Amino acid sequence: LSLVPVPAHVETSPGELPITSSFSVAIDGYQEPRLDRAVERLERQIARQTGLPMRIGRGDTATATLIIRCDHASKPVQDVDEDESYDLEVRPDKASLTAPNPLGALHGLATFSQLISVTPGGFAAPAVRIHDAPRFPWRGLMIDVARHFMPVDVLKRNLDGMAAVKLNVFHWHLSDYQGFRMESKKFPKLQEMGSDSNYYTQEGAKDLIAYARDRGIMVVPEFDVPGHATSWFVGYPQLASAPGPYRIERRWGIFDPALDPTRKSTYSFLDGLVGEMSKLFPAPYFHMGGDEVNGKQWDSNREIQSFMQAHAIKDNHALQAYFVAHMEEIVSKHHKILIGWDEVLSPSLPASVIVQSWRGQSALADAANLGHRGLLSYGYYLDLMHHADEHYSVDPMSEATASLSPEKKKLILGGEACMWTEYVTAENLDSRLWPRTAVIAERLWSSQDVRDIDSMYRRIGRINWELELLGLTHRTSMDAMLRRIAGQDDVNSLWVLAQTVEPVREYDREVLATQRDALNSGAALNRLVDAIPPESKSSREFAHLVERYIASDFRDATTEKYIRAQVTTWAENDARLQPVLAGSFVLKEDAILSTNLASIANIALEALNYAHSNQIPAADWVAEATRTLEDAKKPQDDLVLVVAQPVEVLVQAVSKAKP
Amino acid sequence: LSLVPVPAHVETSPGELPITSSFSVAIDGYQEPRLDRAVERLERQIARQTGLPMRIGRGDTATATLIIRCDHASKPVQDVDEDESYDLEVRPDKASLTAPNPLGALHGLATFSQLISVTPGGFAAPAVRIHDAPRFPWRGLMIDVARHFMPVDVLKRNLDGMAAVKLNVFHWHLSDYQGFRMESKKFPKLQEMGSDSNYYTQEGAKDLIAYARDRGIMVVPEFDVPGHATSWFVGYPQLASAPGPYRIERRWGIFDPALDPTRKSTYSFLDGLVGEMSKLFPAPYFHMGGDEVNGKQWDSNREIQSFMQAHAIKDNHALQAYFVAHMEEIVSKHHKILIGWDEVLSPSLPASVIVQSWRGQSALADAANLGHRGLLSYGYYLDLMHHADEHYSVDPMSEATASLSPEKKKLILGGEACMWTEYVTAENLDSRLWPRTAVIAERLWSSQDVRDIDSMYRRIGRINWELELLGLTHRTSMDAMLRRIAGQDDVNSLWVLAQTVEPVREYDREVLATQRDALNSGAALNRLVDAIPPESKSSREFAHLVERYIASDFRDATTEKYIRAQVTTWAENDARLQPVLAGSFVLKEDAILSTNLASIANIALEALNYAHSNQIPAADWVAEATRTLEDAKKPQDDLVLVVAQPVEVLVQAVSKAKP
Repeated sequence: LSLVPVPAHVETSPGELPITSSFSVAIDGYQEPRLDRAVERLERQIARQTGLPMRIGRGDTATATLIIRCDHASKPVQDVDEDESYDLEVRPDKASLTAPNPLGALHGLATFSQLISVTPGGFAAPAVRIHDAPRFPWRGLMIDVARHFMPVDVLKRNLDGMAAVKLNVFHWHLSDYQGFRMESKKFPKLQEMGSDSNYYTQEGAKDLIAYARDRGIMVVPEFDVPGHATSWFVGYPQLASAPGPYRIERRWGIFDPALDPTRKSTYSFLDGLVGEMSKLFPAPYFHMGGDEVNGKQWDSNREIQSFMQAHAIKDNHALQAYFVAHMEEIVSKHHKILIGWDEVLSPSLPASVIVQSWRGQSALADAANLGHRGLLSYGYYLDLMHHADEHYSVDPMSEATASLSPEKKKLILGGEACMWTEYVTAENLDSRLWPRTAVIAERLWSSQDVRDIDSMYRRIGRINWELELLGLTHRTSMDAMLRRIAGQDDVNSLWVLAQTVEPVREYDREVLATQRDALNSGAALNRLVDAIPPESKSSREFAHLVERYIASDFRDATTEKYIRAQVTTWAENDARLQPVLAGSFVLKEDAILSTNLASIANIALEALNYAHSNQIPAADWVAEATRTLEDAKKPQDDLVLVVAQPVEVLVQAVSKAKP
Repeated sequence: LSLVPVPAHVETSPGELPITSSFSVAIDGYQEPRLDRAVERLERQIARQTGLPMRIGRGDTATATLIIRCDHASKPVQDVDEDESYDLEVRPDKASLTAPNPLGALHGLATFSQLISVTPGGFAAPAVRIHDAPRFPWRGLMIDVARHFMPVDVLKRNLDGMAAVKLNVFHWHLSDYQGFRMESKKFPKLQEMGSDSNYYTQEGAKDLIAYARDRGIMVVPEFDVPGHATSWFVGYPQLASAPGPYRIERRWGIFDPALDPTRKSTYSFLDGLVGEMSKLFPAPYFHMGGDEVNGKQWDSNREIQSFMQAHAIKDNHALQAYFVAHMEEIVSKHHKILIGWDEVLSPSLPASVIVQSWRGQSALADAANLGHRGLLSYGYYLDLMHHADEHYSVDPMSEATASLSPEKKKLILGGEACMWTEYVTAENLDSRLWPRTAVIAERLWSSQDVRDIDSMYRRIGRINWELELLGLTHRTSMDAMLRRIAGQDDVNSLWVLAQTVEPVREYDREVLATQRDALNSGAALNRLVDAIPPESKSSREFAHLVERYIASDFRDATTEKYIRAQVTTWAENDARLQPVLAGSFVLKEDAILSTNLASIANIALEALNYAHSNQIPAADWVAEATRTLEDAKKPQDDLVLVVAQPVEVLVQAVSKAKP
């Protein structure tokens, strides 16, 4: 079985249910239009998965291939305390899906569609009994639409991806220094002056919320205050702690502007906006951000300073706590539960507030000990270009949270993958989200002991192309981008290079962007680093080959042959690729990477020859090779030649081999 | 320059206009909202072509990079007698586009966007002066949405493709045996009973028509009568010439049902429907089909026979002429000009009627001699899986039409590419249309002497990936289909096979479908034949290599090396591919093709060895090789192993070489 996330209990049995054009689905028990739409989506999805002409619409209970039975309705507004469980039984003659409510049924349908595959006998789902329920109730994805705007259709296809892996919260980061992206009818200058015309209409938001609801996903809006709010001040400078005027921030970074937390007018504005948005967003949660206030505007504002003195507010941290307390009152008044990033935590924070941590499990443990529910996002920042297995290894219930009391552990609701978009546009958002988001989804849904990395990569390999059938463009967009920057159709040699490199990690791109004066929203994201996947599958596979070859004491001839074929391709690629690179100003910078690839490939070939002939290379050769490899490992054009690492491993092994 | 279609006059000069994020377009002279939308489309297109962040919206005349000047409005409803010319001048500092009306300006913008490419210095358009105008005023694409329904978004992206290559007529084949696809409010049973719920709403049609108008495309509806109308009879059996009841036709082919041309009620129905549709479709033309009536229902209907006797209608051909004359009256009454396929032609046909010929230039010449305007579609049937160069060689003004008088030649309006969809779905429509439609577009726009095949293929290679940036899926869909039928992500070895085969041509698939009982709309179009492109680029390139090698008397070592590398890949592929084929019931049938590819590749390797060593193979070897090759050339699973042909050429050459 190739399911993502792995279900709680799976029992396979012999046989399989054939999937043909006469496949149909009936709904028994509790019924609602959302279930009918889910059935139609499944049928369309199966049509895409098989190419079979399918009848769309609900079938007959007597003859249906799959029967869905729900006991009762889900909550009218989705929440995280709902029963999401389902039971799916597939037999060779038919299948049944039982769930307490439609939310569970939606998850069961996602599982059913993943069970279908091509076999020697036809399209089929294997006979299986599955009982499934999530480990954590809050499994989210945050997308920052402020730094780069993401049109509704882009978000919709990613909601489809979320539903496919059973994520249930879309956290919509709607405002930041660089843009206010939601239409406010009460304060229209927010979007009119703060968005460069790139904002969502309330109609568009309602449409997206309904789309999400259909897929079992709750939409939680975030309006980041009191920092991260420069875009608000363009239209409403009176909200800020310094006079202005303000312009939409074009740079990336952390900036001074912050709301003035001492004025009543600030809170009446926030009350108006929170009220308006609380009506628009049915979810019971409201995210206020609350992160990264540097306090400089507060420090240099005399009235704020006097206010602090008058009210015995001893420092900016206390002033922030004062602000958060007011926000909590406003949000509660509008019947929502407040969420904030780590920085909202203070001893006086009302217990109802949920803390989302980008700092780590210990922050969550601290919050839990103060009675707060928590969400982990530390370790799930997809913009930092970590590998899937690194995200996979991060668990909300590990480190500090693992030692919480059983009662406090219940406060850990789950987590959220986060996509900050300084270096992500609508064009490559999908390729930065997928398939890695699926790995985090599995961590949050499946049992804690599901952690076999090989199994994860194998199953992710499959969901990767299944997601394409849902309309995601995480792979197709890369081809188009490579052709565009090469200015030609044949990008084979460019792909050879592209598969050996990865984007720099963590905040290295920020550092490098500063050097090249590209730390801003006007910089084009059209370079090789933007077109390639965050993780090199070729490099991972090559590293495995090298390991296996070394483990065989250089005797495994088949593995040697594969390694030789791979490095020969790399060695010969440079001559073909250089003219392509020279023809494009975007690619010119990558010439050195291509040369380096050839150099390290030649080192690998020489190392193979030593190994093959049972010779140990001279110390000079090893030293020179190591120098070249170390050089080749340095970041270049925001890229790292990651295959240099396994080549170095090979060189080291060869140099130490016993002849 | 890599423009498709080639403009009428091009004058290049040194230098180039840089395209950066500060690119902007201003509109001078005549203005209308359509021009503004065209400007925004161009800006979005440039953003996709470059990855640069672009400002969207009209710029300032003083600072704009490109200034558009139109003299006056286009006609309120697009027609084929409009001036479509434009003048485009690109200088290193700015560009200007001048056209009599917005229609010409739209064509000029399409050219401008094709001029942009990546260069060593940046994105740029070369300095150039272009005066351009089409050779033929009617340059169409017909899509059959009756046999397989095509959703509006699929049509829209193909309208984008049409506009990119300056096609100006979308001929919408809306009804046939297998479906009536347009909502009629007057006769709702047409779509309710005749479409399996797959039809366009009138709102949807209006939206599509406006979308087309924005792109300089006229939409001409076809409602095929008196034959090809079984779907009408499901709801309205009284229209037919035999009692019924009728069901939607599920098979492919030519069938008996036909409207009863002798009853007044038939014409009052048609009057109602034509009236309704003439209001919906603003274009001045109405296509009645009129093709392929086999007459059987007429022959066996006594009342029709008596009617014919009473009115001295001597045969079915005359009865059809009687029907067409009535249709012409109805269509004229609703202020439209009638169009029909070849079969509508008869000496009594009113001269205003336009004849669209699937039979050839001589039919057009006959029609012209009777005073009719004509459109060529013979030679432009894209469903027959011909190569681009074959379509390219077909000219509306050649053969019989070439000898028409200058006056009669004016009656040849142009032509239309046609896509009949027995074996085409929404999933692979794009890959069947593109890039070959661009070749026909060039034939109809560019000068008759533009016919260099190498240049055409080179330029098509570029437009092929540019069309992807417009949202067409002609290439990306193939990858997804291959993965689906392989049931795995790695389809490299399947691609190796896929690139050596082509779908069978002409009506061979129909013949083969009859044998496998798949001659119907329920058959899945999910096999290898449906996923691959109609034309094998690898095969064409391999044939060129073989030619070059032979021409060198087997002395060209570089070419020999390329050939050897290619055939080695083919020879080694079978072992890797067979397990993939065995794992999928869809691919199992292709095992023999893979084996055959290995066999002929091994023959090619042996032939190369003979050539390389200046030996002539024994007659036995040649005979055996030829037998194997002849065998390998036979259709298999609706596919032909097209690379067998150039291998045979190589074998023949080697066997005759002078040592």
